[in-house]
Amino acid sequence: MSTFGKAIPVNLFGESHGKAIGITINNLPGGIKLDIEKINQELFKRRPKSKLSTSRREQDEVVFLSGFFDGKTTGTPLTVVVNNNDTRSRDYTPNILRPSHADYTAHMKYNQSQDYRGGGHFSGRLTTPIVILGAIAQQILEQKGIIIASHINSIKDMNDLNFSDVTPNEEILRKLQQSDFPLINNDDQSLFEDVILNAKEHKNSVGGTIETCILNMPVGYGDPFFDSIESILAHLLFSVPAIKGVEFGKGFDITTLLGSEANDPFQIVDGKISTKTNHSGGIQGGISNGMPITFKVAVKPTASIGLPQETVDIETMSPTTLNLQGRHDPCIVHRVIHVINAITAYGILEIMARKEGLSWINS
Amino acid sequence: MSTFGKAIPVNLFGESHGKAIGITINNLPGGIKLDIEKINQELFKRRPKSKLSTSRREQDEVVFLSGFFDGKTTGTPLTVVVNNNDTRSRDYTPNILRPSHADYTAHMKYNQSQDYRGGGHFSGRLTTPIVILGAIAQQILEQKGIIIASHINSIKDMNDLNFSDVTPNEEILRKLQQSDFPLINNDDQSLFEDVILNAKEHKNSVGGTIETCILNMPVGYGDPFFDSIESILAHLLFSVPAIKGVEFGKGFDITTLLGSEANDPFQIVDGKISTKTNHSGGIQGGISNGMPITFKVAVKPTASIGLPQETVDIETMSPTTLNLQGRHDPCIVHRVIHVINAITAYGILEIMARKEGLSWINS
Amino acid sequence: MSTFGKAIPVNLFGESHGKAIGITINNLPGGIKLDIEKINQELFKRRPKSKLSTSRREQDEVVFLSGFFDGKTTGTPLTVVVNNNDTRSRDYTPNILRPSHADYTAHMKYNQSQDYRGGGHFSGRLTTPIVILGAIAQQILEQKGIIIASHINSIKDMNDLNFSDVTPNEEILRKLQQSDFPLINNDDQSLFEDVILNAKEHKNSVGGTIETCILNMPVGYGDPFFDSIESILAHLLFSVPAIKGVEFGKGFDITTLLGSEANDPFQIVDGKISTKTNHSGGIQGGISNGMPITFKVAVKPTASIGLPQETVDIETMSPTTLNLQGRHDPCIVHRVIHVINAITAYGILEIMARKEGLSWINS
Amino acid sequence: MSTFGKAIPVNLFGESHGKAIGITINNLPGGIKLDIEKINQELFKRRPKSKLSTSRREQDEVVFLSGFFDGKTTGTPLTVVVNNNDTRSRDYTPNILRPSHADYTAHMKYNQSQDYRGGGHFSGRLTTPIVILGAIAQQILEQKGIIIASHINSIKDMNDLNFSDVTPNEEILRKLQQSDFPLINNDDQSLFEDVILNAKEHKNSVGGTIETCILNMPVGYGDPFFDSIESILAHLLFSVPAIKGVEFGKGFDITTLLGSEANDPFQIVDGKISTKTNHSGGIQGGISNGMPITFKVAVKPTASIGLPQETVDIETMSPTTLNLQGRHDPCIVHRVIHVINAITAYGILEIMARKEGLSWINS
Repeated sequence: MSTFGKAIPVNLFGESHGKAIGITINNLPGGIKLDIEKINQELFKRRPKSKLSTSRREQDEVVFLSGFFDGKTTGTPLTVVVNNNDTRSRDYTPNILRPSHADYTAHMKYNQSQDYRGGGHFSGRLTTPIVILGAIAQQILEQKGIIIASHINSIKDMNDLNFSDVTPNEEILRKLQQSDFPLINNDDQSLFEDVILNAKEHKNSVGGTIETCILNMPVGYGDPFFDSIESILAHLLFSVPAIKGVEFGKGFDITTLLGSEANDPFQIVDGKISTKTNHSGGIQGGISNGMPITFKVAVKPTASIGLPQETVDIETMSPTTLNLQGRHDPCIVHRVIHVINAITAYGILEIMARKEGLSWINS
Repeated sequence: MSTFGKAIPVNLFGESHGKAIGITINNLPGGIKLDIEKINQELFKRRPKSKLSTSRREQDEVVFLSGFFDGKTTGTPLTVVVNNNDTRSRDYTPNILRPSHADYTAHMKYNQSQDYRGGGHFSGRLTTPIVILGAIAQQILEQKGIIIASHINSIKDMNDLNFSDVTPNEEILRKLQQSDFPLINNDDQSLFEDVILNAKEHKNSVGGTIETCILNMPVGYGDPFFDSIESILAHLLFSVPAIKGVEFGKGFDITTLLGSEANDPFQIVDGKISTKTNHSGGIQGGISNGMPITFKVAVKPTASIGLPQETVDIETMSPTTLNLQGRHDPCIVHRVIHVINAITAYGILEIMARKEGLSWINS
Repeated sequence: MSTFGKAIPVNLFGESHGKAIGITINNLPGGIKLDIEKINQELFKRRPKSKLSTSRREQDEVVFLSGFFDGKTTGTPLTVVVNNNDTRSRDYTPNILRPSHADYTAHMKYNQSQDYRGGGHFSGRLTTPIVILGAIAQQILEQKGIIIASHINSIKDMNDLNFSDVTPNEEILRKLQQSDFPLINNDDQSLFEDVILNAKEHKNSVGGTIETCILNMPVGYGDPFFDSIESILAHLLFSVPAIKGVEFGKGFDITTLLGSEANDPFQIVDGKISTKTNHSGGIQGGISNGMPITFKVAVKPTASIGLPQETVDIETMSPTTLNLQGRHDPCIVHRVIHVINAITAYGILEIMARKEGLSWINS
Repeated sequence: MSTFGKAIPVNLFGESHGKAIGITINNLPGGIKLDIEKINQELFKRRPKSKLSTSRREQDEVVFLSGFFDGKTTGTPLTVVVNNNDTRSRDYTPNILRPSHADYTAHMKYNQSQDYRGGGHFSGRLTTPIVILGAIAQQILEQKGIIIASHINSIKDMNDLNFSDVTPNEEILRKLQQSDFPLINNDDQSLFEDVILNAKEHKNSVGGTIETCILNMPVGYGDPFFDSIESILAHLLFSVPAIKGVEFGKGFDITTLLGSEANDPFQIVDGKISTKTNHSGGIQGGISNGMPITFKVAVKPTASIGLPQETVDIETMSPTTLNLQGRHDPCIVHRVIHVINAITAYGILEIMARKEGLSWINS
């Protein structure tokens, strides 16, 4: 199932080495002007481009197959694809299972018929259409005053500050949005990079955590139980490859506090109700309370590493050693961060559109 | 939205002090014998009953409104309710917002029309129908050989062992299922209880973490992207009140490992492919890999505490102090654990039924 | 699957002789005042009450299990049931298949476990919750100025006028809404009744057609393709037992016209665009065009008749004769008409809420 | 909303003069061999090619963007497109509303931003991806022994026989499948063609009815109420442009019969239960009863005609006359018939896969 959404249903498709990867976005009203330049900027951010990433070159051109005419949405399904021009089919040995990749599970699920080339549907490349989706969602949310940004919260055991250490405001978020390697405390950037470069040097990889903030989310969105904001966002966040944990507000750390420390006292500031602390991450009973929504995700170390790995040849059913060739990302945290922003923007748009309707989107 | 599911859609309803709480379960095939005794046992487990819980007495009788006839499912929608017999409407002051409860968000979302009595739809009582749902799902999964159990992984800063410290097997899980206060390492039970009793004595509360294991999950279930096993389970887990974090396998800790440490090498044991470690928690590319599925959830400290709390009177829009009277749970981790088992069982049934169909359920 | 809807999902449940029949309505915003008296009036209309119907007495009391508090919706799932007080379990011989009932198909689909008493889930009694749903939907639509009414278009070969013969306006529709036996041309009522009474006298039954009009539906609702207004309404209409045909506007008769006769020319009247004729029934490209939406449904003759019928004993697998005892409706057209109005109101509310959102409902 | 389906969700997209039209088909299991030749044959059937149709030339090449590899489905979303090579943008005057087209409703719904060129998303061309979908579904159903075919039941007032006049069997259905102008009674073909040619000569158009038969549908599929077979099929059938009526079995005509005539008596033939007549069209209580499923649809006369038509210029808001130039189909019944077969095949696959699951599809 590569579909999601009730108000704005989307349908993701594509394989790494197929003709194209893309997404269909349904129900966007007609007449939304889309800033193509901004979409390309978001794609550019996700693209590997420094010594911290793979040296592969991905140059993606956004092609609208439908739903876009005269610079505006038409109101009918918007299908956008990126053609897979550069798919030199390198030597693949699909029978040698790559540890902690989806090779084995895909093989079993799809009756040995998956497109294994370049990871197929499981390729990180499939996050490209999600970034496009997010860029469109963010354009809409910006009109409503909602700002979404993330920072690298940690790489391996190197930690940035948290949003709870500062008061997240527009200025901070804008700075994070514009950065290639977004940190709250920029002074440490070179130390973070060293961790990545060190892993690269040893043909190894590292992971990390990302923290996201949604600013100016109005009160009263989301539902108790099955469509809590946490439920919707976690559903989407866990659909991003390599994500192994999601926590809201203070997250797992809240379990070490007493109730009297964990609770967020209400206050009135400038005639408006807010909470003194924001351990709840802007959500109570599944519903936004007007405070910034904050959450963290855990990104596992890149599964593709240059070091030899024990594994199995599924054809011969015998143990073997995998020696991955080629260029691999020693860390994807600083690339995944743009996917997290994107899917969050879509999630928030979906949540708000369920309540406010489609006409509201470009009202 | 209190609905979930495509294969087995469910619809939760009810308020704490309304006529009844309940759930409709759709699409169960006709002819499934339901063991009512087992359903009642599961309900009994969730019920407050020791010095570690509130002294309120909840005695719930399961009433089938539809879909159940002659001891078997009929195949048509199964609606089961628990009547709210004991709803002495105590003095409520809905205008005094309880910190970290849904009072404020519900007030705003529902146009001041929510049923505020006893927490209304947000009451922990609403997890009763989820436990019933889970008891039914577990009966079906047991027929397929799948076992689900959880243990209290921590209360405040007191920690149990992890599933990764032992090899989860049927014996361990059965013991956990039968326990009122399930721990892997039972020797520490009194220390855990002390933490709770200490909080109770100080009119305060504590939270903790729960770790769950799904044993004998076959390989090949779940989907990449939007319906990954992580996505579906996290969606459901975050719909349980008080859950603020979900992580699979090694979860957030995996971010501090190198790729070479984090990856799960494949091996062949007894002619079958498995992984040497299970940091991935039984899921790769969103799809089950045949290893035990493991995850942890964070349960925040009970929001209702006896200590005075700063808050706001929303009617007068002025600051005030909340002094909650009555009996409150100093800790809900050992009660929520049964809800986690229940919703997990439903999630796994939903995931499997999507692929195998409805006829498979009682085949 | 007894669920429907994306904006306002509903879940129908119950069997004729179970504890209760009911429906859960999700996503209604908090604060909608419900006129219980009007709901009861709608139920009363559907109830058998004259010589034209069965002499069984159904007295239904509407019970809100959840979602309704202080005379208003709470915003959380609204579950309303009607208890099955009067379920004297008469002698049923479920092994003798009643022709053109669901006995055989239910037996096969539900693994011989269906609740066969009184037709179980297939009983016409299950339309009671639909009438309640419709009464609620109509209250909301009335606030938006939308009026829905139907007339008996034919009973057997006795025909009323069509909406295309008159100009449907509020006055006509109000009169139809208030009638127990709604006809455009009331002069013929006794002739219609004679057809029914004649069937009754001969222990036989008759069917007929119903024509429905939705007045003041604004332009621009519905979607091309899978969620055309025709698709949504037909989906719902065909879920009403005994409906075997649905046609919009001129329906099947349009196939005998030339294009030049069938097309609805546009005109400008009072500065507004409308069509001179309304053969399209108010819908073009699946989307409302501002003209009255009109459609007809075919109601088959009541399957339960007093005459002996050839059939099969499914237990002995031998031919037999069925002699139905008891009181049966010689015609249900004048009862089903209220179900048609109800499900239409729900369908229109669902269609509009998808576009305008939930906040719009009581704005 | 251009999405449908729970077991096999699909997402249609495209505009007549955009880059491409296409469809994404989700959840097909991996390893289904697709016969591309058969897909092309189905497309060829739908294509205008005789004197009875427009002289426009549509040559469509099926391009798989994803989900298809090595001649088999991969199990991930299958996106298939047809590029719009031949889109000479002729002179369009989108402000002159074409009567009984979607010009006006699209203009209003999409905030004047619809792609109006060639009918945009409303173009009959959008049925091309539906035919591809149907060709794939039919390949799967054929493996299960299920055969779907249709005949032209009438053109204007010229009538063919009905399926109830013959006993539909494999031989009859195969003959209909292979015909370009399928009639049960072929002797009358030239008379039917004369009706169409006569309309063409007068720059006018005609409509008609199509009757469809689903043979070997096993008993026990479909649901009571909202997902009755009638509901699902009618939902899909009414999503085909130009369809204004749908009736099952005897349809509207059943309303003129007595219950004793309308009911289908059960019998035992060769040890199996069947019905003597099939007025119910193979469906009772929304569920298949093992008899052939039969239904008819009404196709309105082509809205595009050469004769001058009264209409409105929406820009100047003044009355005007429309003189459509170019080549138009005088009748689309014999083209739409292939779309009806296609969408029916998809509907039946969806209904069966809901019950039997995805693994069943290529088991």
